[in-house]
Amino acid sequence: MIDEISKQVGHEMYQFLAELYPLCRSITGQGVRETLKGIARHIPVKMHEIPSGTEVFDWTVPQEWNIQDAYIKNKKGERIVDFTQSNLHVVSYSQPIHTTMTLEELKPHLYSLPEHPDWIPYRTSYYKESWGFCLTHRQLMALKEEEYEVCIHSTLESGHLTYGEYVIKGETEEEILISCHTCHPSLCNDNLSGIAVTTFLAKTLSGRSLRYSYRFLFIPGTIGSIAWLALHENQVSTITNGMVVTGVGDPGALTYKKSRQGKAGIDRAFIHILKTSGLEHAIIDFFPYGYDERQYCSPGFNLPVGCFMRTPHGEYPEYHTSGDNLTFVQPQPLEESLICCVKAVNLLERNTTFLSQNPKCEPRLGKRGLYRAIGGESEGAKREMAMLWVLNFSDGTHSLLDIAERSGLEFEVIDKAAESLEEHGLLKKVSL
Amino acid sequence: MIDEISKQVGHEMYQFLAELYPLCRSITGQGVRETLKGIARHIPVKMHEIPSGTEVFDWTVPQEWNIQDAYIKNKKGERIVDFTQSNLHVVSYSQPIHTTMTLEELKPHLYSLPEHPDWIPYRTSYYKESWGFCLTHRQLMALKEEEYEVCIHSTLESGHLTYGEYVIKGETEEEILISCHTCHPSLCNDNLSGIAVTTFLAKTLSGRSLRYSYRFLFIPGTIGSIAWLALHENQVSTITNGMVVTGVGDPGALTYKKSRQGKAGIDRAFIHILKTSGLEHAIIDFFPYGYDERQYCSPGFNLPVGCFMRTPHGEYPEYHTSGDNLTFVQPQPLEESLICCVKAVNLLERNTTFLSQNPKCEPRLGKRGLYRAIGGESEGAKREMAMLWVLNFSDGTHSLLDIAERSGLEFEVIDKAAESLEEHGLLKKVSL
Amino acid sequence: MIDEISKQVGHEMYQFLAELYPLCRSITGQGVRETLKGIARHIPVKMHEIPSGTEVFDWTVPQEWNIQDAYIKNKKGERIVDFTQSNLHVVSYSQPIHTTMTLEELKPHLYSLPEHPDWIPYRTSYYKESWGFCLTHRQLMALKEEEYEVCIHSTLESGHLTYGEYVIKGETEEEILISCHTCHPSLCNDNLSGIAVTTFLAKTLSGRSLRYSYRFLFIPGTIGSIAWLALHENQVSTITNGMVVTGVGDPGALTYKKSRQGKAGIDRAFIHILKTSGLEHAIIDFFPYGYDERQYCSPGFNLPVGCFMRTPHGEYPEYHTSGDNLTFVQPQPLEESLICCVKAVNLLERNTTFLSQNPKCEPRLGKRGLYRAIGGESEGAKREMAMLWVLNFSDGTHSLLDIAERSGLEFEVIDKAAESLEEHGLLKKVSL
Repeated sequence: MIDEISKQVGHEMYQFLAELYPLCRSITGQGVRETLKGIARHIPVKMHEIPSGTEVFDWTVPQEWNIQDAYIKNKKGERIVDFTQSNLHVVSYSQPIHTTMTLEELKPHLYSLPEHPDWIPYRTSYYKESWGFCLTHRQLMALKEEEYEVCIHSTLESGHLTYGEYVIKGETEEEILISCHTCHPSLCNDNLSGIAVTTFLAKTLSGRSLRYSYRFLFIPGTIGSIAWLALHENQVSTITNGMVVTGVGDPGALTYKKSRQGKAGIDRAFIHILKTSGLEHAIIDFFPYGYDERQYCSPGFNLPVGCFMRTPHGEYPEYHTSGDNLTFVQPQPLEESLICCVKAVNLLERNTTFLSQNPKCEPRLGKRGLYRAIGGESEGAKREMAMLWVLNFSDGTHSLLDIAERSGLEFEVIDKAAESLEEHGLLKKVSL
Repeated sequence: MIDEISKQVGHEMYQFLAELYPLCRSITGQGVRETLKGIARHIPVKMHEIPSGTEVFDWTVPQEWNIQDAYIKNKKGERIVDFTQSNLHVVSYSQPIHTTMTLEELKPHLYSLPEHPDWIPYRTSYYKESWGFCLTHRQLMALKEEEYEVCIHSTLESGHLTYGEYVIKGETEEEILISCHTCHPSLCNDNLSGIAVTTFLAKTLSGRSLRYSYRFLFIPGTIGSIAWLALHENQVSTITNGMVVTGVGDPGALTYKKSRQGKAGIDRAFIHILKTSGLEHAIIDFFPYGYDERQYCSPGFNLPVGCFMRTPHGEYPEYHTSGDNLTFVQPQPLEESLICCVKAVNLLERNTTFLSQNPKCEPRLGKRGLYRAIGGESEGAKREMAMLWVLNFSDGTHSLLDIAERSGLEFEVIDKAAESLEEHGLLKKVSL
Repeated sequence: MIDEISKQVGHEMYQFLAELYPLCRSITGQGVRETLKGIARHIPVKMHEIPSGTEVFDWTVPQEWNIQDAYIKNKKGERIVDFTQSNLHVVSYSQPIHTTMTLEELKPHLYSLPEHPDWIPYRTSYYKESWGFCLTHRQLMALKEEEYEVCIHSTLESGHLTYGEYVIKGETEEEILISCHTCHPSLCNDNLSGIAVTTFLAKTLSGRSLRYSYRFLFIPGTIGSIAWLALHENQVSTITNGMVVTGVGDPGALTYKKSRQGKAGIDRAFIHILKTSGLEHAIIDFFPYGYDERQYCSPGFNLPVGCFMRTPHGEYPEYHTSGDNLTFVQPQPLEESLICCVKAVNLLERNTTFLSQNPKCEPRLGKRGLYRAIGGESEGAKREMAMLWVLNFSDGTHSLLDIAERSGLEFEVIDKAAESLEEHGLLKKVSL
């Protein structure tokens, strides 16, 4: 699976992300629909609409928010804060307004970052009626005492919450859920990176013969996963593993946050892949804040869904600012992240329990041409050790992942050794 | 509970301890009775008397020992070792004697500490008929070859072993046992500190509405706990947790020695309290020597009783010497120790398992005014995280302590979060 | 048991090993028979012969190999490589040859160690028809372009595989297997050291009253253990513990490689002995390569057999070279290794579960003369603590080893404490 990934995939994801960057996404609205159309150019994602007002557990699908334009004009009529320059300038879900006011009246509606005077913060007000502008601290400091024309040309009306879904059917009904949030405007790492990696992971799996079925969700954060779970409550029992993909394009260490269960297949897969990756990484325990794993892992569902990311949210200064841009995210980290996801999926697909057909003493590998038959000396020795591990522990109670973990060898090496041994009749599959 | 402790409590305990300091305590005798009278000025402790000769398991309650005076006089008739200066000068349970003897004859009965030449050691001879004097090494070195008048005006006769008991009744019959030894003479840390903290803990709990019943024992070490257990054998099954309190006034790290069971409620409570205390501390495994936990944790009882102390016995040079005095023990460590005990008891009282009433996805905290509603930004964020932890793990299998341990947040913060959530109908109690 | 080991045992083993050093052992042949005769001078080992061609699981007992002489002569007729100087000069199982050839033709059959130019490597070719010479790199470099007379006067014919076996019967049929490989020629650590320690361990146990039966196997590596297991398949269920002894004469750290089971009696015994030895040591997990534990621990047997050694194979430069000689191996490490084996066996023999006869509170040790009655102050304190540990944990669920592990005291100290307590009627045996 890994071998078939294009060498250019990092650049391809980066370019895809750059195309989606200018769109003004929120938890509802046209920006989300445009984003899903962009995704649809790569995979046949299906767009779903849930009407405003739909009750979903303790929550209600909100009104749909759309925005055409917004600005603050000074007395000379110059746009000193301009939505068309950056969609971060407007607090998401701002109500429409068009009026003039003094600086004193305006100030409570302005947000800046004194510690990063050149960055625009990202703010939302989904569940409280409000409006506001975000601007750099330099812009804020430059404002004089005068009258300002304040305009937010937005609509907040009954409409829909839009999400995308793409399902790849495998041999079994058992599903692996891969979820990413689509609600943030021009922020690259959070979460165009997650959208790009999820899209290209789907692209990689598409058209293959797979053991598991895969469900990809492109949803607004929190309300999206809550709505999806509420509307598909009787369907979640088929989800045997899953991951939330977010913040996977920054240069920080690869990070896997375990599911609430903590020892699910996906947890063991990512832990093994990261530990044998040779890359800087961190494994962290589940905690009930973060991204949509909060909902998937709520106690009434307790799904085996972890979260794959690089630097965790809030732990990098660019987080939720205009500093999270096309410079902050780069092709190389995107590619590493995608490869980890593919390897984790490959591990779940390939993990099997075998039974040695020669359980009493070792079989003679030499007479079967399996003794240092392949690769150079060091590669051959590693392969041979992998075969001995697989033979010794294929007693019907150890999966290939168990053996990989115990031996410290990469799953792929163990898997290939098992494949050779099976071909020579030394192993038989016990179960998936 | 903590909030109601007087700011002066450290000084109050220190003063109480200073009052008891001059009394000559032993495992029996008037000194113990006077000590219990001192305690009775703070809490309604009841005095019990067990006759000498009573068989208690493998032991026998010994004769009662009392002492009026003791000295060694030189040829000039000067008291060169004088019981009225320090009751440590006489080996506890010394038999009466009044005679003259040479230095050579006297020397086998003299005990000093060459490595601490200004301290008087503390020695006992409970179960072997003997007599002796303890003195500073300087005193010993100054003794000349001459005749000495040696007098110990003591009695060792059939009498009683005296102990104190105070029970606070709670909602349930389940008891928490708090035990301290009262047998040491003028030694402050060992164990007037334990007597003081136990007395003030009882005072703090007294008059409150409590879930558990509390039994406070003021007993001579070893023989006291053995006698109490032997005479109340059919009653110990109600003891669900307990602690021995000893050596809690020195400046060393707070130390909790686990019960033999190792994972009892009291163990988990103290471990959590110490780990989140921000104070220097140590957690040590059970071992079958030390204080009365030896008896409570003997295999035929195996009660969940730990031992709370500061520096363990024998690990400070002042241990069992006149150096363990009113300078060595101070109000501040006494207060810290009391607060730990109160917090541990509070944790046992308040630990509960809840069931989230909105187990599927998170409930909306905002619409209930629970979102950053209380405290400053940082305090509010912590409270909010505590609520998310409680909601996510209140699945009927995690107690508040389980959640506190897993989240790394203090039990009190988790408890308060649960209280808020319960008030808003988001949680229901499953069980104590 | 330890007390009865001669102070000279290290030197005795070293002398025994030196006697066996010159023999040319292989997996079959006269060298093995001579070695067994040497062992028979110490213990009544029985020699067994398995015919060539016998099918043993996936393997076949090979032809018997014997060698009289071998050399390479230069044009002057000088033996420039001479089997009589070192039996390592000939690749083991080399086919007979007698011919002349050029240096170019000869070179593919020559093996040296450029990084250790004065050492002769050790090479074998058991399962591939071949011949060759091993020589120092200095010898190889000195060879000129000329004609060489090459002679290997060997036979490779139908014969037998020879192994030795010695069984000591104990009270029970439960067996402890002790296995060492006998197939290496003039190499001291690998494995004359193992042969020597195994022989002297057998000698130590011989004639004693033992709980377990002991089976000592002196076998060629791999094929020997496979053949033994194949021919005694229905007998292995009596093996309750076992160890492979190899490489126990070098100066490196004592090393115990756990059985595949990982927590067998032998594993716990060696771990405890090494941890309390005060000597440098390492405990390593099972892995499916190494020595005959590979076969004993194959999944169809999964016997509780570990491997005791010093520096693991391949981790010292002298490994499988002429550097593994009578200088590399010394009496002191041999003695330490033997003592560890004896202690481990003693632990298995003596490990017992007792029930305290005074489970409620401590019994009075003083009135039984057990209180600091034995040894000096420090020794007495240790003995007393050991008694308290044994009394407290002899509740029918903790063996003496459990207590030793938990207390951190040496098994022997715990065992002696238990012995004293049992003599005084304070303990009763529950089970072996």
